[in-house]
Amino acid sequence: MLIANAVLADGTKRHIDVKEGRIAALLPTTADLSARDDVLDVAGALLLPPLVDGHIHLDKTLLGLPWVPNEAKGNKVADRIAAERKVRAGRTVPESETGSNLVRQVVASGTLHMRSHVDIDNQLGLKNLHEVLKIRERFRDLVTIQIVAFPQSGIVRSPGTAELLDAAIAEGADLVGGLDPVGIDGDLDGHLDAVFGIAERRGVGVDIHLHDGGEGGIAQLLAIAERTIASGMKGRVAVSHAFALGSVDADTATRTADVLAKAGVAIMSHGPGGAAIPPLALLRERGVEVFGGSDNIRDAWSPFGSGDMLERAMMIGYRANFRHDRELQLAFEMVTIAASRVLRIKGYGIALGAAADFVVVEAGSVAEAVATRPRRKLVIKGGKVVAKDGVFAA
Amino acid sequence: MLIANAVLADGTKRHIDVKEGRIAALLPTTADLSARDDVLDVAGALLLPPLVDGHIHLDKTLLGLPWVPNEAKGNKVADRIAAERKVRAGRTVPESETGSNLVRQVVASGTLHMRSHVDIDNQLGLKNLHEVLKIRERFRDLVTIQIVAFPQSGIVRSPGTAELLDAAIAEGADLVGGLDPVGIDGDLDGHLDAVFGIAERRGVGVDIHLHDGGEGGIAQLLAIAERTIASGMKGRVAVSHAFALGSVDADTATRTADVLAKAGVAIMSHGPGGAAIPPLALLRERGVEVFGGSDNIRDAWSPFGSGDMLERAMMIGYRANFRHDRELQLAFEMVTIAASRVLRIKGYGIALGAAADFVVVEAGSVAEAVATRPRRKLVIKGGKVVAKDGVFAA
Repeated sequence: MLIANAVLADGTKRHIDVKEGRIAALLPTTADLSARDDVLDVAGALLLPPLVDGHIHLDKTLLGLPWVPNEAKGNKVADRIAAERKVRAGRTVPESETGSNLVRQVVASGTLHMRSHVDIDNQLGLKNLHEVLKIRERFRDLVTIQIVAFPQSGIVRSPGTAELLDAAIAEGADLVGGLDPVGIDGDLDGHLDAVFGIAERRGVGVDIHLHDGGEGGIAQLLAIAERTIASGMKGRVAVSHAFALGSVDADTATRTADVLAKAGVAIMSHGPGGAAIPPLALLRERGVEVFGGSDNIRDAWSPFGSGDMLERAMMIGYRANFRHDRELQLAFEMVTIAASRVLRIKGYGIALGAAADFVVVEAGSVAEAVATRPRRKLVIKGGKVVAKDGVFAA
Repeated sequence: MLIANAVLADGTKRHIDVKEGRIAALLPTTADLSARDDVLDVAGALLLPPLVDGHIHLDKTLLGLPWVPNEAKGNKVADRIAAERKVRAGRTVPESETGSNLVRQVVASGTLHMRSHVDIDNQLGLKNLHEVLKIRERFRDLVTIQIVAFPQSGIVRSPGTAELLDAAIAEGADLVGGLDPVGIDGDLDGHLDAVFGIAERRGVGVDIHLHDGGEGGIAQLLAIAERTIASGMKGRVAVSHAFALGSVDADTATRTADVLAKAGVAIMSHGPGGAAIPPLALLRERGVEVFGGSDNIRDAWSPFGSGDMLERAMMIGYRANFRHDRELQLAFEMVTIAASRVLRIKGYGIALGAAADFVVVEAGSVAEAVATRPRRKLVIKGGKVVAKDGVFAA
């Protein structure tokens, strides 16, 4: 396959020769193609690397089911955990099916790599992990699904969960997760002992949900950074949400950013609607890896979300008050190259020898693509078209 | 025309008989249609009233032009005003054309009524008003365009603007606007004297942009409410944005809401990305009319925005932390019935004798339509299809 007349993110125009699922050549558009009978002419459309969702919950979504109204009694994380238990108890369709619906939808929008948190607690056991492992197996040739064993009900306050997290890693989860060590679990050291203990023992990375805001949240971020250095896990730890960074003064945010950068702790933001957004441009400027994710999509937590990471980049940019092209570029990098670094995706990007994975859209620039979120003309995986005009075709 | 098998927002299923552009009958779906040869069967799709955009800037948009990067030097309103002047000076396509592009796009997404602010200052004079009057004339059989004479560069600090605002009303603008009486104009009384003076003299309504936050913003809201009562304009005054309501404590917000409700001052929110959102549910609970609008769409102020008011309802709901169906319903009402009341649209709604204006989507409920923003299957104006599957067809 040869993709002709593609415009790359930097504005250069290239023909892309694909062999055995990899980029075999990036040719000037003056190159003679008359001898080729496998040309796909994209006629000046923008060709982007595949989108990367750094935070999704494949086991939570209710996508494809008739509308399920949100029934949470209050507005706290604990209220939503309780509401989700009810929805889960009423499920008649397994998580592997609704999660598969979501995978097909996100592939159609250009996402080929994702990190999915998967609920694990002492009621559920490893059930949701098993469901998501089925999804991963089903789509193994199409998408990367990295699994975080996520203690949605806490660890210390939910006896037996630490052992389950450990067992989850043994059964195929890639990282160990965490959740508000103070706000939910009420025991900072106990929570981090468990999380980092498993991570060190199993040699896996860490990704901790941290909703706790203000100085309390900052203290937890600093503790996570300290643990990261102590356990030699620089570059393998992420904190998702980290609303605290958006709720403190700029000096505190900057000092904390410097600590996170030094420890190699990455920050995931989905551009929260009802909470403070971390100062993404500042974090990046101070050397912190920031990346994007969908978070909840049509589940017991949120009625919103589509899994479209160009839309997510727009939401992140909108919430971060981004307006300039360089800012929209940052939002785009959060859902592409930066997320690929955090997820350690090999062979990512538009470069010689990289995987022939592409998203093709009608847009004049990356900034325009983020702002307008055009329909994906083509999604290509390993040189094969897997979605066309927004419709899954794999 | 008879629209068969429509599901209304309240869940009831009806055939809708249309005569002379109005709803002539709402029939049970057991009614015999065999004698009719003008049936449009929507097969159980959701039929909604047309969307209403309570705050758009038809003269600012650059829609349809090649991407124009944002060049504002800083993040203040004054920086954006300066940047917009440059973009305006470089225009080669008149505002009437780019604004028409936007009208076609919003009609395709189901909006049939809008309130457009139009820039007026002592450099522009009435140029933009004349351009938007052309748009209004061009689409007069298709959409309602209510025009607010908007002093984008202030009034007191921009000599001659008050006279221009007055002249704008004489030439066809429907309301007089205002802009941060303190933050931009530096003269609360002087600004409001001018705005309410013109409104009283000309017998028109008022819609004031208020970005100023905190207690200072609250003081301006209270002053606007006081002027509204003093001038006997209850129900004819709106404040757009009113970020201040989202940046003060709940007690202050509640007290201010009670004053606004008593004065009949409505509040417009677009679900701001980088500023505080007013507490919409609280405002409504206290009797304040809250309505929605797009604000900037692809212009020198913002790269974002599409003019799709279902998407806007989602953004409002996302920012307001809405999750329950009743909350999504509120967001929906902000872009439909509530906005229609503020704009005083006659014959609005799905009722006997009302205009045969409809938006048809595939969704099981209003809440689902807000969350998923499905493509508009049909947009119908006065019994005629004006857009189909998201494509303008008038």
